[in-house]
Amino acid sequence: MSSNFADRLLEGIKSKGSPIAVGLDPQYSRLPEAIRENKELNDELDTESAIDAIFEFSTKVLRIVAPHVAAVKLNIAFFEKYFWEGIESYYSLVEEANDLGLEIIGDVKRADIPATNEVYAKAHLANPEFTNMEDLLAPDAVTVNPYFGIEALRPFIGVASDQGKGIFIVCRSSNPEATEIQDFAGPDGKKLYEFVAEQIAKISSEPGLIGNSGYSCIGAVVGATDPQAAKRLREIMPNNLFLVPGYGTQGGTADAAKACFKSDGTGAIVTATRSIIYAYELDQYKDSPTWEKAVERAVIDMKEQINAALRA
Amino acid sequence: MSSNFADRLLEGIKSKGSPIAVGLDPQYSRLPEAIRENKELNDELDTESAIDAIFEFSTKVLRIVAPHVAAVKLNIAFFEKYFWEGIESYYSLVEEANDLGLEIIGDVKRADIPATNEVYAKAHLANPEFTNMEDLLAPDAVTVNPYFGIEALRPFIGVASDQGKGIFIVCRSSNPEATEIQDFAGPDGKKLYEFVAEQIAKISSEPGLIGNSGYSCIGAVVGATDPQAAKRLREIMPNNLFLVPGYGTQGGTADAAKACFKSDGTGAIVTATRSIIYAYELDQYKDSPTWEKAVERAVIDMKEQINAALRA
Repeated sequence: MSSNFADRLLEGIKSKGSPIAVGLDPQYSRLPEAIRENKELNDELDTESAIDAIFEFSTKVLRIVAPHVAAVKLNIAFFEKYFWEGIESYYSLVEEANDLGLEIIGDVKRADIPATNEVYAKAHLANPEFTNMEDLLAPDAVTVNPYFGIEALRPFIGVASDQGKGIFIVCRSSNPEATEIQDFAGPDGKKLYEFVAEQIAKISSEPGLIGNSGYSCIGAVVGATDPQAAKRLREIMPNNLFLVPGYGTQGGTADAAKACFKSDGTGAIVTATRSIIYAYELDQYKDSPTWEKAVERAVIDMKEQINAALRA
Repeated sequence: MSSNFADRLLEGIKSKGSPIAVGLDPQYSRLPEAIRENKELNDELDTESAIDAIFEFSTKVLRIVAPHVAAVKLNIAFFEKYFWEGIESYYSLVEEANDLGLEIIGDVKRADIPATNEVYAKAHLANPEFTNMEDLLAPDAVTVNPYFGIEALRPFIGVASDQGKGIFIVCRSSNPEATEIQDFAGPDGKKLYEFVAEQIAKISSEPGLIGNSGYSCIGAVVGATDPQAAKRLREIMPNNLFLVPGYGTQGGTADAAKACFKSDGTGAIVTATRSIIYAYELDQYKDSPTWEKAVERAVIDMKEQINAALRA
């Protein structure tokens, strides 16, 4: 197993045959009937019962998608909602995903001043140093926010470099509300997200961060919802892997996602969340014999769509 | 008790006689000997033992500072470091602080796309709706990050408006690394943090958000480290309370913090963290008979310094 996160992720993408990741944003109210019926305590308003159902669903989804994807993205918000029980579940899922050979991206979007980032990096990215938590695993990579400055993210970069982990710095997010800030333009017309990209490119080429693949363990979050921006960002950040959200429910298409890749088909991993994990709600998959089959069909379809777009 | 967070915070400031808040960033290695010695299991590397010591320290600090401050700011990073046990401790401290009549600011710096912010707002700001968590309290306010757009923060604003809670949007943070992003300037010389401030001012004046005091339940984080910026931001955001970090350890002074206030002495609450909770490490308080006395002297000194600066 490669010790550079970018190398590992690219090996996973190669072996699974597609640059896609599935996101887990599990919500009790959208769980399949088969799971909600099964619970002894079928109660959305009881944290223990609800998180048990969510955990059961999430582990099943992980097993269904594992043969098809290199990575999973766990959105911690959906676990924080269940307080400490949710957090315990989050780390159990990290372990489950690791057992399945998946790279795990903790979608935590943290950032603060450096003294606090030091602690966040220990909490979310570093391998735990506690003697009573020896079996606990932290994710392979986390998402972080650039607003406190790229230099303020040094503690995360340090852990990534020392422990073969990665970070994805949010550069251009997939939500339309983000443009007011991220498209804020300087005197020469340069937009904030382009400036952020330049800073990401600079810091991620420092010694020890670039793997054998030529990519850095520091990547960027670039939405699939703005192909023009993605194209420009691909030029500014030649050594950075893009984590590409927004495909599916948020309106991103395979063609838009394509702009995040280089002509050799590397450089990005496209994530889809709700359009995969809740596939059984969609008209096109409603006739599946089970919810599991719907999820499987959706992830295979996505794989084929992205691969077709990259070949075109 | 007022139902608008800004009104409540201002009442607290008035009754305590000073616009200050104490931050809690508890680190095991810096706890007083008296606490570390007391523990049956004196082990920094055991999450249970370490978080027990941190909880004991934090509750004592809360009781010492409560007569002098209107609010406390709990930095969740320092609890996330201890995984689920840390999170349980965080919520126990929210309850302790509430019992002491303090306003509680959860320093969580969250932000994501709106669908995720909806969940973060439920996890960190809304009163829990779980039947098995009826006694659980969420903080009165949380800090949030503007990078996904101010409009993306609507779910937090909705909870604040509906439940008498507040948010502080990071505008100009106290760390030097932040300037590269936050001072990014547009064609007319307008800096990003000024643009963020304009957006904050706009959204926080919507119906239902402004209290009897004339201040909105949406505030802004403005560092005490740049008086010029603070002065400008005070003009742009007349109806917003500033949460002012950076005083003490980070180099902010009472004079610099003063720029965050209006001439009537309202408009901001200054936070200090390490310079108060670890006062027993400082030369000027080393001769205190106990660590508790050092913390008490430090918070009273800070109160007097801020009040003196506001009178000057």
